[in-house]
Amino acid sequence: MKKINVGLIGFGNVGSGVVKILRERRSFLAEKIGLEINVKKVCDKDFGRRRNVSVEGKLLTRDASEVINDPQIDIVVELIGGIHPAKEFITEALKKGKNVVTANKALLAEQGKELFALSHDRGKSIYFEASVGAGIPIIKSLREGLVANKFTGIYGIVNGTSNYVLSQMSDNNCTFSDALKEAKVKGFAEKDPTLDIDGMDSAHKLILLVYLAFGKLVSMEDIFIEGVSQVSLADINYAKELGFQIKLLAIAKKEAGELEVRVHPTLIPDNHLLASVGGIFNAIYVSSDLAGDLLFYGPGAGQLAAASGVVSDLVDAARNIQAGLFSSTLNIGLDRSIKKLRKIDEIEGRYYMRLIVVDRPGVLAKISGVFARFNISIASVSQKERRRSSIVPIVMVAHGAKEKNLRLALDAIDKLDCVKEKSVAIRIEEV
Amino acid sequence: MKKINVGLIGFGNVGSGVVKILRERRSFLAEKIGLEINVKKVCDKDFGRRRNVSVEGKLLTRDASEVINDPQIDIVVELIGGIHPAKEFITEALKKGKNVVTANKALLAEQGKELFALSHDRGKSIYFEASVGAGIPIIKSLREGLVANKFTGIYGIVNGTSNYVLSQMSDNNCTFSDALKEAKVKGFAEKDPTLDIDGMDSAHKLILLVYLAFGKLVSMEDIFIEGVSQVSLADINYAKELGFQIKLLAIAKKEAGELEVRVHPTLIPDNHLLASVGGIFNAIYVSSDLAGDLLFYGPGAGQLAAASGVVSDLVDAARNIQAGLFSSTLNIGLDRSIKKLRKIDEIEGRYYMRLIVVDRPGVLAKISGVFARFNISIASVSQKERRRSSIVPIVMVAHGAKEKNLRLALDAIDKLDCVKEKSVAIRIEEV
Repeated sequence: MKKINVGLIGFGNVGSGVVKILRERRSFLAEKIGLEINVKKVCDKDFGRRRNVSVEGKLLTRDASEVINDPQIDIVVELIGGIHPAKEFITEALKKGKNVVTANKALLAEQGKELFALSHDRGKSIYFEASVGAGIPIIKSLREGLVANKFTGIYGIVNGTSNYVLSQMSDNNCTFSDALKEAKVKGFAEKDPTLDIDGMDSAHKLILLVYLAFGKLVSMEDIFIEGVSQVSLADINYAKELGFQIKLLAIAKKEAGELEVRVHPTLIPDNHLLASVGGIFNAIYVSSDLAGDLLFYGPGAGQLAAASGVVSDLVDAARNIQAGLFSSTLNIGLDRSIKKLRKIDEIEGRYYMRLIVVDRPGVLAKISGVFARFNISIASVSQKERRRSSIVPIVMVAHGAKEKNLRLALDAIDKLDCVKEKSVAIRIEEV
Repeated sequence: MKKINVGLIGFGNVGSGVVKILRERRSFLAEKIGLEINVKKVCDKDFGRRRNVSVEGKLLTRDASEVINDPQIDIVVELIGGIHPAKEFITEALKKGKNVVTANKALLAEQGKELFALSHDRGKSIYFEASVGAGIPIIKSLREGLVANKFTGIYGIVNGTSNYVLSQMSDNNCTFSDALKEAKVKGFAEKDPTLDIDGMDSAHKLILLVYLAFGKLVSMEDIFIEGVSQVSLADINYAKELGFQIKLLAIAKKEAGELEVRVHPTLIPDNHLLASVGGIFNAIYVSSDLAGDLLFYGPGAGQLAAASGVVSDLVDAARNIQAGLFSSTLNIGLDRSIKKLRKIDEIEGRYYMRLIVVDRPGVLAKISGVFARFNISIASVSQKERRRSSIVPIVMVAHGAKEKNLRLALDAIDKLDCVKEKSVAIRIEEV
């Protein structure tokens, strides 16, 4: 049986999961694919850590170039994360004629243009199934399973940490900081969870999904990004009363030749499948023109889940290498109907709003007057509890509102004497 | 650019969708895959019907052998459905060295053993993405995306007609026959919907899912099959009060070296994703040991949805043909931990039951006595409305009950004087 040799750079959590699977499922995989996938070298900076798989000392190295320059290695797996030196390792590997498997969404999202072009030039592929949704085969589904489709929308819950925090707040009526504390204790949040909580990680993943669905490699600057740290328990509960859950969504939406790309907390109707995606789970809702509306759901993180995605890439890579097939990440079907990216100011939709106001006659009239001035229709208004003396929250829903007008209206409203705190506005999405 | 020639047998609803996509997306697909997929011949018995795509007369034939024997045709697409002559066409095509794409679940489920063996012998592949869940890439996901995984369970809503009927009953409080009538009017049910309603279609699809997940080709006789026609509106409403939805599930469950394969109406907790799958939508919930619990959701039928699946197969077939790759449907990873199939009598679980009894003291004691005799624990009992004079329904939930004992107990109970109708029992699944 032909042997395909693999070299790993990064022997951390996911890396050791990959080695574990390749070892324990060696014959299971060989029987399925008619090829043997062999771990030839493993590189890491630190072999002192405890791992759930052991590797013979002679395969270990602290020097990535020993992996990249090994002429017998067919596939380099990069699992160190971050931009540098991951980018240099992948670049070198491609130049040495290796195919590359990576789970590095930050790198591909921020430097994909250069890497995909190099991959294309060299005729060596970059596989990245585990970069979005861990073991959920969303990358393969967009590239292959839905190959004939054009897309109108992608709506993803793609950050497990944020989703865990929001789910905890909603299920257990706890504050953001308590929920985040718990997520850390349970290992669902990094020590420094900034990238997850502030929406950057979701934006990275959105870039990859948009690339696969629309053939356009947008940049981080193109994406409007708002994280979950400003979502309050009060908003979660008021949204619930209105029949909505608040989720951090990564959204790409095509409309009239324009593409919106944004990441922000979003109200989703209770009866939508995405509203039921709880805890660390991820789900990607895809609107396609042939296959219709699809949902892909599963754990968005975890050692073996991510390793499952990496190994499926390794199997594809091994079969393609054997057959001399090159799978380019440049030719993924540019949607030529997209003429421009729509700026956040220009999007139009429904909004949930919470205003903290003085409870006295005439206040609503004043506020409504401002909204009217900015051409914003109000669909519902409801005054909430009166506990704090004469200061009360008002929850309003606006519809058909342009984001820019809404922001201007709220700025004006926040300057009124009767408004006591900065107003909150959260988008409602009609998925 | 290399051209791969395709011949279609069956130019009905899905067939014309396939031709439409291949024509309208010709350059879109060619750009993606570097190959041209060309419709070389189209065979049907009847070209008089109105179709949403037109094909030059010279490509049309009423004789399938003109497709099968055309030496320039690389891939034969079978879309006529049914066992004969579809089986003969596919057999001949494989023997003539063609690769085959089909959406024919009945054929593969009932005659797959022979066809897969022939395909393997000849080194020509059979692709069947559209046979389960139309455009949902579930076949590819099980075979490729989750290639490294072993599975513990598959829970599928895989028949759109049944799901539409149950959803209508639940949402609109209407009877089975009214819901079915509406399904026919809307085109969601065939004129003769027997195969869908009685669970046979779901069983066919379950056979394919089990084959991909466990490597075992079970037969229809191995599967316990119960359709939806016995589900009453009363049961749907009582189940709702208990926090459940009733869905027709195709279930494969591995436990202690035994595999259960069954299709039947099932109570699923309201908060489970499968409970939210409404209308003609399909969803397959997959429990895997590495990637975790996954859900694949989408429309389970429709011309373009099914054609989307067929075209994704065509793209795979075309790429594999070009590369000389053979993708066997025999080597799909036998799960050797499965020692036997568990018979329906031996399964153990929770049950919803509805008994119609005379409303008088001592009745519950009698019934409970029978359950106790058969070693069945009752978790809850609740007497329902008393409209019909002194005859009332009682809803009970049993737990930890062996199916065999439960059936014996109900047989005994149905013989009691105080029991006025045949009792109903529906399985509750802890997905």
